[in-house]
Amino acid sequence: MRYAALGGGKRLRPLLVVEVAALFGRGLTETDKGSALAGAALEFIHCYSLVHDDLPAMDDDDLRRGQPTVHKAFDEATAILAGDALLTMAFDVIAEDAVHADAAVRLRLSRELARASGLGGMAGGQMLDLESENRDRTEREIRTLQAMKTGALIRYACRAGAILADAPEDDVTRMTRFGETIGLAFQLADDLLDVEATPETVGKATGKDAAAGKATLIGLLGISETRTELAQLMAEARTLLAPYGERAAALAAIAAYVADRKS
Amino acid sequence: MRYAALGGGKRLRPLLVVEVAALFGRGLTETDKGSALAGAALEFIHCYSLVHDDLPAMDDDDLRRGQPTVHKAFDEATAILAGDALLTMAFDVIAEDAVHADAAVRLRLSRELARASGLGGMAGGQMLDLESENRDRTEREIRTLQAMKTGALIRYACRAGAILADAPEDDVTRMTRFGETIGLAFQLADDLLDVEATPETVGKATGKDAAAGKATLIGLLGISETRTELAQLMAEARTLLAPYGERAAALAAIAAYVADRKS
Repeated sequence: MRYAALGGGKRLRPLLVVEVAALFGRGLTETDKGSALAGAALEFIHCYSLVHDDLPAMDDDDLRRGQPTVHKAFDEATAILAGDALLTMAFDVIAEDAVHADAAVRLRLSRELARASGLGGMAGGQMLDLESENRDRTEREIRTLQAMKTGALIRYACRAGAILADAPEDDVTRMTRFGETIGLAFQLADDLLDVEATPETVGKATGKDAAAGKATLIGLLGISETRTELAQLMAEARTLLAPYGERAAALAAIAAYVADRKS
Repeated sequence: MRYAALGGGKRLRPLLVVEVAALFGRGLTETDKGSALAGAALEFIHCYSLVHDDLPAMDDDDLRRGQPTVHKAFDEATAILAGDALLTMAFDVIAEDAVHADAAVRLRLSRELARASGLGGMAGGQMLDLESENRDRTEREIRTLQAMKTGALIRYACRAGAILADAPEDDVTRMTRFGETIGLAFQLADDLLDVEATPETVGKATGKDAAAGKATLIGLLGISETRTELAQLMAEARTLLAPYGERAAALAAIAAYVADRKS
């Protein structure tokens, strides 16, 4: 579990939780680590999904963040159980008192985390993704599966930050749209990296989607149109952050990083 | 997920939730299905653990309840994801309004479920169990791993029933001890079945523990002493139920079934 969760990574999802909470007045401080706890719970989910995704029966990856994947460093049974226990621990951590004084808010965060991660979110999206191998999918189907597989947790990160900072529901909705926007941008940037980058720069195998016959947006849209859509999404993200002015500078920087990242 | 969760099984854990809740005045009715929902959440956890346990990298079982295991009926990737999604769904269902009017109680049930299922409970016990193959374990170590692997969910079932019925904390504690008692009885009965029964009667492979070189209590204690301890546990279970008199008849019957079951 430590190897899977503490082995580096971008920490994009917890960073979003923390920065969105800070935007609405609940910054991470010496005495209030609530947003970091919620971010950790979310990162456990993300890390478990990588461990299980890398398994031989799934994507069969030997390398993750430039290091042996969990089933390579240990064994398959350990990787399955470590993933299961990380997933389960997320629901212990999100329930901690320090996340929010009101148990009803913690329960809301816990339940939304279950929905973002499960059948109607990430896990369901992974199943659709596996099924998409060597099979034609419409653009709409690919957008749906990617919104579930990748988008749901990034969307949740932004919602959770707003909810745990007691932001008004209008702002929770706006942050939800911000999360959806950069979640799709993240996926398009990922598609571009898979096509254009080398294993050395991204720390994992590339060209895997095409090799696996997976239906991707870039496969349908092409590189140029993918770049155009990415630019549109960035414009939309900036529009969504505009009402907050300079206070949203950190979130604007994260959005820009998501689109431009090299790994 | 349906194949894994709706394919039969003893439903021991949800039955315990429902009957303990009924003992404390919150029976399952047409208008109040709260205890059944909590029981379903717990059963999802139990079912996911069976799906992952049966995988080739774990116990490598082809048969479960007389039917092909999930990875045999579908494939390994589907089994991994179906297990993940069942586990995750448990934390959606336990949070449903109908489980308890007070969100703080639902959060308590959710968090205790995470702890019973995770690193310090079932999943941790499974890891210890895997590590026990072909390696000597002390009786104390075996008792600890079995209390985690099998005991934690049965203990939780009894606690959850009491908690969702707003039982006094003394009764929650008593039900916790009842759960621990029949949880150990369940494991001893399982050990006896693995040694004495046939695959035809139990619907899964037998003699697997010895074949895998797993450290079991029956391996240390022998059949006769295992039967003696089982009888002692049954006496203890009856003592724990005594204060409730006839109202605990259903729970007494479940305890007797746990010790005497033939599958």
